[in-house]
Amino acid sequence: MTRTVYVNGSYLPEDQATVSIFDRGFLMADGVYEVTSVLDGKLIDFEGHAIRLERSMAALDMTSPITSEALADMFRELVRLNDIDQGMIYLQITRGNPGDRSFVFPDASLPATIVAFTQNIPNLADAPAAKTGFKVISVPDMRWGRVDIKTTQLLYPSMAKMMAKKAGVDDSWFVADDGGITEGTSNNAYIVKGNRIITRQLSTDILHGITRASVLRFAAEAQFEVEERPFTVAEAQAADEAFSTAASIFVMPVVEVDGKPVGKGTPGPVAARLREIYLDEMRKTAI
Amino acid sequence: MTRTVYVNGSYLPEDQATVSIFDRGFLMADGVYEVTSVLDGKLIDFEGHAIRLERSMAALDMTSPITSEALADMFRELVRLNDIDQGMIYLQITRGNPGDRSFVFPDASLPATIVAFTQNIPNLADAPAAKTGFKVISVPDMRWGRVDIKTTQLLYPSMAKMMAKKAGVDDSWFVADDGGITEGTSNNAYIVKGNRIITRQLSTDILHGITRASVLRFAAEAQFEVEERPFTVAEAQAADEAFSTAASIFVMPVVEVDGKPVGKGTPGPVAARLREIYLDEMRKTAI
Repeated sequence: MTRTVYVNGSYLPEDQATVSIFDRGFLMADGVYEVTSVLDGKLIDFEGHAIRLERSMAALDMTSPITSEALADMFRELVRLNDIDQGMIYLQITRGNPGDRSFVFPDASLPATIVAFTQNIPNLADAPAAKTGFKVISVPDMRWGRVDIKTTQLLYPSMAKMMAKKAGVDDSWFVADDGGITEGTSNNAYIVKGNRIITRQLSTDILHGITRASVLRFAAEAQFEVEERPFTVAEAQAADEAFSTAASIFVMPVVEVDGKPVGKGTPGPVAARLREIYLDEMRKTAI
Repeated sequence: MTRTVYVNGSYLPEDQATVSIFDRGFLMADGVYEVTSVLDGKLIDFEGHAIRLERSMAALDMTSPITSEALADMFRELVRLNDIDQGMIYLQITRGNPGDRSFVFPDASLPATIVAFTQNIPNLADAPAAKTGFKVISVPDMRWGRVDIKTTQLLYPSMAKMMAKKAGVDDSWFVADDGGITEGTSNNAYIVKGNRIITRQLSTDILHGITRASVLRFAAEAQFEVEERPFTVAEAQAADEAFSTAASIFVMPVVEVDGKPVGKGTPGPVAARLREIYLDEMRKTAI
């Protein structure tokens, strides 16, 4: 089936969906994005993504070209047109097409470019990987200094994903100059020690995960202690459990770091419980 | 006049030049670029740019989709079609359009996307700015860790250009964590003390400028001492002269750093001489 995608107000067959070569998203990675999950044909954690989108654009002096309500309508139309039960909606907004290339931002009156498309993932909630867990390697965090802004400057995360693939594992976790893990290639990173869940504090060094915020809230409600601080590879290897969170993976157990098993080397009960709570709560509040 | 641009083997009117929204250059900044200057309708330092392009692609495990000879032919055709006497040719090569979004690189057999266009700049050689010089501010270098690879991850340089603009100056120079200046937003940075030209050594921290390599060679031939090491803002402010180099500006005097004049606060003789030598030599070897 040919997907129907969204480009600047039009719903188009995916093979007709294009942007100008002068689009600043293409020439300069001058764009932001969000990935929103779909369960039972409904949008998961939509408001969080819409708020973060506004935050990313504000941080880049971009004018928001679409209201949160119009965005939800557009997402729902894409879900309908593509008959998505489980999957994801990718949204990208760039500073638009000024008709030529310059390091200087175009005038704020230039229309932004808005692109969105669905990805159909029938087993998103019951992902087989959640049963076996991710194995990860650690790699130096060589990304730019404002990864809290969700930009399309994703080459290094993509390279790190390939390093993982070459190492025969599922993902890479980034290690900052301070020796602490920042996050995964496209997910936040956690370890579990007893009743305590440890994850790096919010800063410009990590993405302010929407799934992270929800999971930490649910964890606190479920009487876990939440400690926000950097942790090292050695700490992760000595932890009871580890996991990652992101819109696309919810709560994903991590069972191995740099070749050493975490805990028993199998998905642990805390990650499993948080995944279950997260999915339950999200299904309740899906729109 | 509508420009004729190049997209994947076709010469097209600029308003018909598009790429897929699934192009990895658009979704992930997974692309490299080069800017080659044109003087008297001929290509300046072409071989250097072609070699660096290969280097950038090799560093990213990209397969080169075009020979250096075919690239030169394509550039010359763009110059001819657009009647460029002085200006620039922008070339971008991305990992192509895999038809969907994934952090995993597509198979190496996927055709790359090749895009190129001209920019007509009638007074490129006699740029008025070369007579008055650039004023710059220093800003923290927040770019990723492999800026020696010439990728399209240019959002921060673009933001730094805007910081300069807001400060009423021409450009920003990046300062690394070691306190040394790395380079400008799209140019290498130098200071002059007596007969000595000082510029940061090659590493993953700076772009390996093609203009830089030529200028340093000419400087040595003209009996200047060349010292490759980091220098600070304070050193720049206390220097006799400062300048930047890039394909688009050749040798550009820098007369002010963070509000303080460099030397007399006017373009100095060393930068002027190097600019003259560079332009002379480049015109001799243009193809």
